Amino acid sequence: MRVSSALLQKAAKTVDKYSLYVPKSGVFPKGFKVASLASGVKKNGNRDLGIILNTNKSRPSNAAAVFTTNRFKAAPVLVSKQVLDGSSGEGVNAIVANSGCANAVTGELGMQDAQKVAGQVNAHIGKENSTLVMSTGVIGQRLQMDKISKGINTLFDQKQFGSDFNSWLNLAKSICTTDTFPKLISSKFQLSDGTEYTLTGISKGAGMICPNMATLLGFIVTDLPIKASTLQAMLTAAVNRSFNCISVDGDMSTNDTICMLANGAVDTFVIDEASPDFEQVKSQVTEFAKQLAQLVVRDGEGATKFVTVNVKNSANFKDARIIAETISNSMLVKSALYGQDANWGRILCAIGYSKLENLASLDESKINVSFIATDNSSPRELKLIANGVPQFDIDENRASEILALPDLEILVDMGTGSEECQFWTCDLSHEYVTINGDYRS
Amino acid sequence: MRVSSALLQKAAKTVDKYSLYVPKSGVFPKGFKVASLASGVKKNGNRDLGIILNTNKSRPSNAAAVFTTNRFKAAPVLVSKQVLDGSSGEGVNAIVANSGCANAVTGELGMQDAQKVAGQVNAHIGKENSTLVMSTGVIGQRLQMDKISKGINTLFDQKQFGSDFNSWLNLAKSICTTDTFPKLISSKFQLSDGTEYTLTGISKGAGMICPNMATLLGFIVTDLPIKASTLQAMLTAAVNRSFNCISVDGDMSTNDTICMLANGAVDTFVIDEASPDFEQVKSQVTEFAKQLAQLVVRDGEGATKFVTVNVKNSANFKDARIIAETISNSMLVKSALYGQDANWGRILCAIGYSKLENLASLDESKINVSFIATDNSSPRELKLIANGVPQFDIDENRASEILALPDLEILVDMGTGSEECQFWTCDLSHEYVTINGDYRS
Repeated sequence: MRVSSALLQKAAKTVDKYSLYVPKSGVFPKGFKVASLASGVKKNGNRDLGIILNTNKSRPSNAAAVFTTNRFKAAPVLVSKQVLDGSSGEGVNAIVANSGCANAVTGELGMQDAQKVAGQVNAHIGKENSTLVMSTGVIGQRLQMDKISKGINTLFDQKQFGSDFNSWLNLAKSICTTDTFPKLISSKFQLSDGTEYTLTGISKGAGMICPNMATLLGFIVTDLPIKASTLQAMLTAAVNRSFNCISVDGDMSTNDTICMLANGAVDTFVIDEASPDFEQVKSQVTEFAKQLAQLVVRDGEGATKFVTVNVKNSANFKDARIIAETISNSMLVKSALYGQDANWGRILCAIGYSKLENLASLDESKINVSFIATDNSSPRELKLIANGVPQFDIDENRASEILALPDLEILVDMGTGSEECQFWTCDLSHEYVTINGDYRS
Repeated sequence: MRVSSALLQKAAKTVDKYSLYVPKSGVFPKGFKVASLASGVKKNGNRDLGIILNTNKSRPSNAAAVFTTNRFKAAPVLVSKQVLDGSSGEGVNAIVANSGCANAVTGELGMQDAQKVAGQVNAHIGKENSTLVMSTGVIGQRLQMDKISKGINTLFDQKQFGSDFNSWLNLAKSICTTDTFPKLISSKFQLSDGTEYTLTGISKGAGMICPNMATLLGFIVTDLPIKASTLQAMLTAAVNRSFNCISVDGDMSTNDTICMLANGAVDTFVIDEASPDFEQVKSQVTEFAKQLAQLVVRDGEGATKFVTVNVKNSANFKDARIIAETISNSMLVKSALYGQDANWGRILCAIGYSKLENLASLDESKINVSFIATDNSSPRELKLIANGVPQFDIDENRASEILALPDLEILVDMGTGSEECQFWTCDLSHEYVTINGDYRS
């Protein structure tokens, strides 16, 4: 096997992602408490069970979710869907999540298990149809109901819920599988009248688990009051621009779920689609979801680079998205990024075989492709293709500098319209193959 | 970087593909002569220019081709399309192919170069609109016309054309880029009345070239007389079941071309779609094209395994094809195959996110997935999923035996109809990442 010493050195220089991406403190939305523990499902004794609980009583807590479109939907996905359908997203007060077992491909018994988990939390909070349930981990195995059930009772009976930073960080840890760091972000925002509100987000992925797949879970909670149908519209829009715009390896799991709770603990008018603040909150939620989704790419298996694929000036959004996704999923492009090779040919090729909805989105003579430096060095833009013509006099030294950065951007200007889409991807490394080819050995 | 010693040992045990897949002799169709030489475009002095010439005068030689659907079509693709359109596929007597330079993304000047190459061969054989042209190699660079032009003249003026085995093998070598072996197959067939005819095929791919992509070229020539429109229908059908059913990394190049010549040197009735032998010849050509396409997968970069993905009993062919393709392109499935891991979860997951045309093609409770041994050992079939239920008592020893084979089959029985599709893929190895991430160093 030919592995150059340069690549081996590069792989050895692993970044300390934990210190870079895990916060040391945080502010959290009013009216939520969280708890987590090690139920014993994870054999290494790590936390594997967590609950988010609404404690605000001033208004019903509303919920929304976006689920995997994989045809083999895991039991927790189907049960959470039932809860949302049955409640119209109103009065949903809890999310219970476990890691170590995905409760996927477990048939009718798996459905009963997921219903029991949700039912047990409902019983503790005294309200039916009030709990969403999520699982991540090994597929094809049933939940160890004794451990999970005991764990839920312990959390409630021993009053282990808290709203401090460590409680939230521990919750983020409790849904990790092979993630190398817990993913937790939190920010304060203002409405137009100065009213403050908070968004907190937790995510996990795209770690492999045996025998398994990359499961993506995400929660966003806020103390704003948001009408249930508006919350769903807002989350769907945000996910379309965030979690649906990331690529580690292009695979989509049976358990992928992004959900959102809005408990209305902030004393302000309920936000619906006619509210003056609707567009602003929607874009704040979208930007926040992008940050949360990007953490998943940063923790991509074996990833040494975080790459933004920015397709702009497209005739329509769908085709901008298709092109960004095709570049992001190309094994040849991802390998070239790992090798720090300014390979415009592979990018152009991926654009060319993108399955566009509207052929007019791509005009071969109008396309521009550049690498963009993300570290404020200059020149910021290195043009690879100008109006369809490859640039043969590119500054190779500058190309090497940009490609050596851990963060970089591929900018594709379609020149056929005004729509744009960003996708976030990582490179394809030896380590990816090692992790995914070799985890049993 | 964590690379287990087991994987390193496996990678070191490279198969001698040349001795396995390159024939030592062959029979070739009547009425064709071929020639090739090193024009100097390839810096290592290897052959890089080849010509196939029809010498039969009893009937016009007909041609058909299937071209890349990539939007950035290379100049030789566009010129060959013009030749076929202008001639209706009738009276096409030559194919000229060069390697080392793809003449892609070269604009109007590249078009003129490709036209000059075809025109020069036309002049030698004394007939306009008579030559298809193909190129593979570096993209974004113009052909070195002085070398190519001199090479074509040398081949014709020095009468270097031959019809023996070595001439054909050298032609196969002349279109190689980073291929590790030349791809040449040849077989005799019979019509229903006992008339013999021959198919010879040459292909290349999916090797990487800098700065570049995997280009797939294939020629099939026969001495049967086949009506031009029938030949096109036959080739399109064959390619749909062969070259369009292989996956190395899912990327499709600017230059991909499969073409076919039928010179009618065999003295029999011209075959059209009403001929009694039509269906038989079509299926012979299809099976032959499958063999030729499979050689490309066997030479997949870094590949240690050849995997047939066989999707059967589907409600329709399109969805069988989509599922087979999705499994074949899944980086997680390909990594698991490299790691020899009986990972039914990743296969099921890929089936679940396949973008089906008709949702009824997949019934989660009817699907069966097995590994099939290809070495006549038994039990031949190892069932992983039975009617949607994962089999937890699988024989791990038998799984290890099957997964250690260099050839294996993944069988997916949809249970929703009677259509089927085979796809051929390879595993994703460290070596793939090394080749594609590191070729500049």
